[in-house]
Amino acid sequence: MTDISRPARPAILGQNQYGKAENRVVKITRDGATHHIKDLNVSVSLSGDMDEVHYSGSNANVLPTDTTKNTVYAFAKEHGIESAEQFGIHLARHFVTSQEPIRTARIRIEEYAWERIDNSGKGEHSFVRKGQETRLAQITFDGSSWEVISGLKDLTVMNSTDSEFWGYVKDKYTTLPEAYDRILATSVTGRWRFNWSADEQEMPDWDTSYEETRTHLLQAFAETYSLSLQQTLYQMGTRIIDNRSEIDEVRFSLPNKHHFLVDLEPFGLKNDNEVYFAADRPYGLIEATVLRDGCEARIPVDLTNL
Amino acid sequence: MTDISRPARPAILGQNQYGKAENRVVKITRDGATHHIKDLNVSVSLSGDMDEVHYSGSNANVLPTDTTKNTVYAFAKEHGIESAEQFGIHLARHFVTSQEPIRTARIRIEEYAWERIDNSGKGEHSFVRKGQETRLAQITFDGSSWEVISGLKDLTVMNSTDSEFWGYVKDKYTTLPEAYDRILATSVTGRWRFNWSADEQEMPDWDTSYEETRTHLLQAFAETYSLSLQQTLYQMGTRIIDNRSEIDEVRFSLPNKHHFLVDLEPFGLKNDNEVYFAADRPYGLIEATVLRDGCEARIPVDLTNL
Amino acid sequence: MTDISRPARPAILGQNQYGKAENRVVKITRDGATHHIKDLNVSVSLSGDMDEVHYSGSNANVLPTDTTKNTVYAFAKEHGIESAEQFGIHLARHFVTSQEPIRTARIRIEEYAWERIDNSGKGEHSFVRKGQETRLAQITFDGSSWEVISGLKDLTVMNSTDSEFWGYVKDKYTTLPEAYDRILATSVTGRWRFNWSADEQEMPDWDTSYEETRTHLLQAFAETYSLSLQQTLYQMGTRIIDNRSEIDEVRFSLPNKHHFLVDLEPFGLKNDNEVYFAADRPYGLIEATVLRDGCEARIPVDLTNL
Amino acid sequence: MTDISRPARPAILGQNQYGKAENRVVKITRDGATHHIKDLNVSVSLSGDMDEVHYSGSNANVLPTDTTKNTVYAFAKEHGIESAEQFGIHLARHFVTSQEPIRTARIRIEEYAWERIDNSGKGEHSFVRKGQETRLAQITFDGSSWEVISGLKDLTVMNSTDSEFWGYVKDKYTTLPEAYDRILATSVTGRWRFNWSADEQEMPDWDTSYEETRTHLLQAFAETYSLSLQQTLYQMGTRIIDNRSEIDEVRFSLPNKHHFLVDLEPFGLKNDNEVYFAADRPYGLIEATVLRDGCEARIPVDLTNL
Repeated sequence: MTDISRPARPAILGQNQYGKAENRVVKITRDGATHHIKDLNVSVSLSGDMDEVHYSGSNANVLPTDTTKNTVYAFAKEHGIESAEQFGIHLARHFVTSQEPIRTARIRIEEYAWERIDNSGKGEHSFVRKGQETRLAQITFDGSSWEVISGLKDLTVMNSTDSEFWGYVKDKYTTLPEAYDRILATSVTGRWRFNWSADEQEMPDWDTSYEETRTHLLQAFAETYSLSLQQTLYQMGTRIIDNRSEIDEVRFSLPNKHHFLVDLEPFGLKNDNEVYFAADRPYGLIEATVLRDGCEARIPVDLTNL
Repeated sequence: MTDISRPARPAILGQNQYGKAENRVVKITRDGATHHIKDLNVSVSLSGDMDEVHYSGSNANVLPTDTTKNTVYAFAKEHGIESAEQFGIHLARHFVTSQEPIRTARIRIEEYAWERIDNSGKGEHSFVRKGQETRLAQITFDGSSWEVISGLKDLTVMNSTDSEFWGYVKDKYTTLPEAYDRILATSVTGRWRFNWSADEQEMPDWDTSYEETRTHLLQAFAETYSLSLQQTLYQMGTRIIDNRSEIDEVRFSLPNKHHFLVDLEPFGLKNDNEVYFAADRPYGLIEATVLRDGCEARIPVDLTNL
Repeated sequence: MTDISRPARPAILGQNQYGKAENRVVKITRDGATHHIKDLNVSVSLSGDMDEVHYSGSNANVLPTDTTKNTVYAFAKEHGIESAEQFGIHLARHFVTSQEPIRTARIRIEEYAWERIDNSGKGEHSFVRKGQETRLAQITFDGSSWEVISGLKDLTVMNSTDSEFWGYVKDKYTTLPEAYDRILATSVTGRWRFNWSADEQEMPDWDTSYEETRTHLLQAFAETYSLSLQQTLYQMGTRIIDNRSEIDEVRFSLPNKHHFLVDLEPFGLKNDNEVYFAADRPYGLIEATVLRDGCEARIPVDLTNL
Repeated sequence: MTDISRPARPAILGQNQYGKAENRVVKITRDGATHHIKDLNVSVSLSGDMDEVHYSGSNANVLPTDTTKNTVYAFAKEHGIESAEQFGIHLARHFVTSQEPIRTARIRIEEYAWERIDNSGKGEHSFVRKGQETRLAQITFDGSSWEVISGLKDLTVMNSTDSEFWGYVKDKYTTLPEAYDRILATSVTGRWRFNWSADEQEMPDWDTSYEETRTHLLQAFAETYSLSLQQTLYQMGTRIIDNRSEIDEVRFSLPNKHHFLVDLEPFGLKNDNEVYFAADRPYGLIEATVLRDGCEARIPVDLTNL
């Protein structure tokens, strides 16, 4: 970060990164009349020896963001898209190894799932977007070691019973009545970090890992008799760490999507945990990391901006 | 609309309606350990003898929007939610028959679907939001006859082949090359009107009708070898009119979600209908009504605001 | 709509329209070192003799949506963008008069306003987006007569006093207490129709008309001591009809953005109309047309979809 | 984080935090007929001795998120809202000093600005939402020292000239032509950290600091003849560090909102930097920190999630 040409002033440059964000790439693979689809949103972020472009505007070390976009599309053809993670690994390796000034590449990918539509035998090329969670992958490479964080967002779940909330601290601003049977609902944002970090190690089967991890978190949510959303979160994380040896760290951001029991007494009606108002804002926000014992936490603390 | 107290001025009151919009109601029905869920967003719109509240601010004829909200929640308990359409019928009838100044009630409902999560036998009370299309229902009652329009939005579909576009008009601003194998993708917004209009008629089975109609439109999309999105739209509408005798009119608004083949030639690569850029804006927008012969068109022309 | 080639079936084609939606065009006009900016989102919708493209997929009458997009950009150069309305008039006239099968063209435009940033005399070419309301224009031409509807959306306003709500109908579901001093807030969506309809008539000054109309509606909102949001709406419409002779009809869709007084008594505090909770959903939705006496209502009833 | 009751398993708890997010509070202050408005969205996040609620579901250390919501509203009355930062300081101090298990409180606030509407002398109580940027504040307190980070988002700016981009790296995937006169536009997300950290220090005037910092970043954007968006970013940061001694660190996330010159040659037209297509995705994303020399970087690297 030292730079002779920089004028003497109190301001210096800190961490910086750049690239093309949100490259929407759809890859169709034809296996005879059967087509397969991969639908990704790929964001490239590069960093390295980039002081001069900030100080003087010299682009001598800058691979244009437009080129990083082109590379995404070219690689979809050259390497195919086996999985979001594998695709990101190809891209990150390329940028770091082909451009001397680039020291670190981080690829973030959103993936949208599609299901087949039955079309009465006219060929397997018709699809409907599944529309449930968005799958996430983040691949970082610094030239020697890899960090892969996968995850998901917008997976909305609900238990209509087996949730309580009582025994909490009461101060002068507390008015909440205790609850012994409530709805527990959340929209899961989760990220999990793999312990794969070197080319010499055997790579996980990324798609299998995703499917299994997703199932574990859903089942832990459904099977936990909950005394707090924190307890449910911890069970979801523990279930993953216990069952998926390729994962060392999990972070969840869980909004408590409040469903308030509506007071029907003014209308002479009893509301026996039947009719709820689904509120938008405010919402509880519960966030935590669950780690494999002995491992370091590296997933950023804030997965959302609120 | 004549009103003696109104000052002599050139401005008069035209059509008007009011009510509480977006009442989010979740109804849990417990059948022993098995729970069922209905998740609706209900908007109430009332009209009638409402000149005075506009002219002088007198609320003597105004049932508060807050009361219409309360009624939604109370009716979820009193009548249950058999289907969105049936629930809307209960509400619309109530407002028109219980309040003299209210001549017409229109209820609009969005419904969000949920699937069960397997929770290892701990009871059927765990759900994950399906996240695909939003189901729509609109029920209008004027005291004597009913109009029910159902539909859906945000159902995204794609054919990765069997779509062409050529033989079109070319003027001095035309640059588009003809296409003999392209992706056809759209996000379906559709509404369909039932011919049920009087209490004496047998009411359709709303849920069965919805499921069947949705299947027909998906299959027509998938099975049509398409020379234009208009042709596909018409096939989708025709399939419904031909197969669902309870429906007289269908209207679709179909954005052509363009997937542009990326030019990989600068990189020495051939793109044989494999790698696409999924564009956001602009998009083609194809809209049309398909009617049962002899029936009148009543669904508004613009289902979206662009 | 009769078509010999159409197979004998119960389904017929109704109203249909097509075009390219959301063409984002930015026009920079350089007057020496002083630049001017117009920032529009233009949607083209054409209709006419289009049965065949629906029935058989023949595109013989279809000007591609891609061409309509190209025309928007070419016209920004050829005609400039004097105002959204004038630009839409150029486009609508072109499509109807240059393509025989096209009978009607409707152009919808959103316009985003920008302000200048002071840049210490380095030239007038720096801007910050104003970010307040979005200006709207809709131009329809059928080859002989014009309809121009202008408007705006997302203009959020609030009176922190001078609003009451009482004297309303009370039924068995009514729990709302009467209010004698409340916040009145709404996000204005409005559209107004001009009586200009023929080339022979003198055309309004579209920009002046917009600015004046916007001022009238804001002032009517601010100056009305309100007993109901309906009363305020009517005053806003009346003010426009009374003052702008070029406008014959106004339609508003006004969500009542509820600000609920927070109950601070449990904390030993008095809330004297000071601290409010700004709620998201549900919200009252008040919609009405105000017309010049003797004029016909033509603006569609539903400006939003809820 | 050691806990005797925790079963022997490989998963341990890492960083965690909880609270009520997005509390929408509007405060009206009446100074006779002149009203003042503060419109905030307040998110509370608490951390401390919270292992047990995760491991066993015991809420013995948990102040309910509902209570944190109540506290926001009560404090709006008890302390008023002088500025977003000062309000967050009151809240953070309260949670850390009043609840033993809570070691750290972080308050995040969004603020929406309003302007007055002229209402012909009927009192100063009518407002229109400004609608430009959202002001941001984040206050963190650990019982001994303070960290205040302010900022803004969604401030969209454009220079219609005085921007070039050339001299960059060209690899086999590079197709971008060099540009010697282009539009430079971005939507600014920025955060800046104050060096105020202890109650003994004199507190900055938060509102003045915000207004001045906003002006500096706008002017630096407008006055920089730009060879790269990185250069512009650095100038914006430097201007703030040079002029605002209360600020030690600035971080920007600047999407390059591409405006592509439309090729009008096919229509026989010359496009002399006049007509542009404003693209949505993908976009360049330029992010960097600018620091006062000798200061530590503490603002998180990713201000957005892509």
